[in-house]
Amino acid sequence: MRVPDPLVLTSPANPRLRALAGLRRRRTREQEGRTLVEGYDELGLALDAGVVPHSLFYCPELMGTQALADDLVDRVAALGTEVVRVSRPAFERTAYREGPDGVLAVVGTVDRRCTDLSPGPAPLLLVCQGVEKPGNLGAMLRTADAAGVDAVVAADPVTDWGNPNTVRASKGTVFSVPVASDPTAVVQDWLRARGVPLVAATPDTPTEHTEVDYRGPVAIAVGTEKTGLTAEVLEAADHRVRIPMVGRANSLNVATSAAIIVYEAVRQRRQAGV
Amino acid sequence: MRVPDPLVLTSPANPRLRALAGLRRRRTREQEGRTLVEGYDELGLALDAGVVPHSLFYCPELMGTQALADDLVDRVAALGTEVVRVSRPAFERTAYREGPDGVLAVVGTVDRRCTDLSPGPAPLLLVCQGVEKPGNLGAMLRTADAAGVDAVVAADPVTDWGNPNTVRASKGTVFSVPVASDPTAVVQDWLRARGVPLVAATPDTPTEHTEVDYRGPVAIAVGTEKTGLTAEVLEAADHRVRIPMVGRANSLNVATSAAIIVYEAVRQRRQAGV
Repeated sequence: MRVPDPLVLTSPANPRLRALAGLRRRRTREQEGRTLVEGYDELGLALDAGVVPHSLFYCPELMGTQALADDLVDRVAALGTEVVRVSRPAFERTAYREGPDGVLAVVGTVDRRCTDLSPGPAPLLLVCQGVEKPGNLGAMLRTADAAGVDAVVAADPVTDWGNPNTVRASKGTVFSVPVASDPTAVVQDWLRARGVPLVAATPDTPTEHTEVDYRGPVAIAVGTEKTGLTAEVLEAADHRVRIPMVGRANSLNVATSAAIIVYEAVRQRRQAGV
Repeated sequence: MRVPDPLVLTSPANPRLRALAGLRRRRTREQEGRTLVEGYDELGLALDAGVVPHSLFYCPELMGTQALADDLVDRVAALGTEVVRVSRPAFERTAYREGPDGVLAVVGTVDRRCTDLSPGPAPLLLVCQGVEKPGNLGAMLRTADAAGVDAVVAADPVTDWGNPNTVRASKGTVFSVPVASDPTAVVQDWLRARGVPLVAATPDTPTEHTEVDYRGPVAIAVGTEKTGLTAEVLEAADHRVRIPMVGRANSLNVATSAAIIVYEAVRQRRQAGV
């Protein structure tokens, strides 16, 4: 199916393109329930996950080959999505990132609660409390995707899942990994009700992260970049674990810490055939 | 010791401040053998590691307390380092990062070769081949610092260790962790001569990263963000290992991959009492 004559926008001042910039503000995203996905690979993951974009803005000159553009436009137009061709100068002015690859789509934001999730009987979950930086949230999603984490829950998030920087840093995995957000107390109640023990990462414990059994249902919790997990989570946790550190600097990046603990869980679960 | 009347610069157009901007260019850094350290904590790590700055630019109004500023100025001035007080507007215009904390120093670049390193008899080394992004190099340094990696070697680096973004992302650990850079062939020869086996990370192998013995001398190698390690390194490696991935996206970030493998080595070495 060839799309006959998609609209071509040539001015970055076009109201359609300027409206896209509005989606960089959280308030607008929450009001409209929409966000931006930028990048060919990222949109591909979203489409694979069943996301139906509201609209696609594309620039064949930035996409490398016309065939690539045609294929993507066909695939998206077949979903009933409006497709808008944009001139190169206008696209470059509109794009969020440097060196854009000619693909920008408007999609519904991911807005789920814990109770919307349905992980299996022995889930491996990742809980991120109060994480501030979209880059860190995105990096944890990539790790969760690779490791087969069943869901990532943002507790009292400072950054929303729909932040375009989160979407970008996640490489689109925000659409393929089940995610949710809720107040911390709700997350804790939900875990307790499902019988999922909580393993909290903190430097203030003698127990190393390799000394805990992750082979059953388990939620690994990490806290904010600056202050870590709150006292309420640390106290309620079934295990508190630290990653052994011998260096001069104070800490590992939160996303790195999450990856190290998650992959320790993966190691144990693979060895046990979970 | 109180510094009597440090120079106060109030104009961002001052030639001294403009010269700092020049150090953001690799060519200038290499010509002058100098780079920038920004941030109180980062400079603290550099000082702890024995670095003697060429000069310190500081802004007490951005540092939180005057006492903090006094202490740092005293410490640095005692090393014979020139100390220059900068007005807040001028500092904010000069600073590299957003929300600067009032500390900016000029220091010598880290410029070592493999032969300048002297790791112990059973070292744990990290080799980064052709890594492009300063943020990734810096993140790997933080991991190396925390994990007690004996040295980090950049093979055919695209980014220099002195890149201010590397320094910043490393949180100053570029000064505390032994680092070197050399052409890949030189790195390989150096490892071979010292009897250090090479473990190469690649998706194209059945061996998982947990199936290799890291308890003796070992170098873990990771490649570029886009294409990974070169064929010559993969062929020469003693082991090729992959991190098990089950997700929809293609790969983990290179710094995350490095952290996962390095901490598997740490786990094995701690259990064995290495």
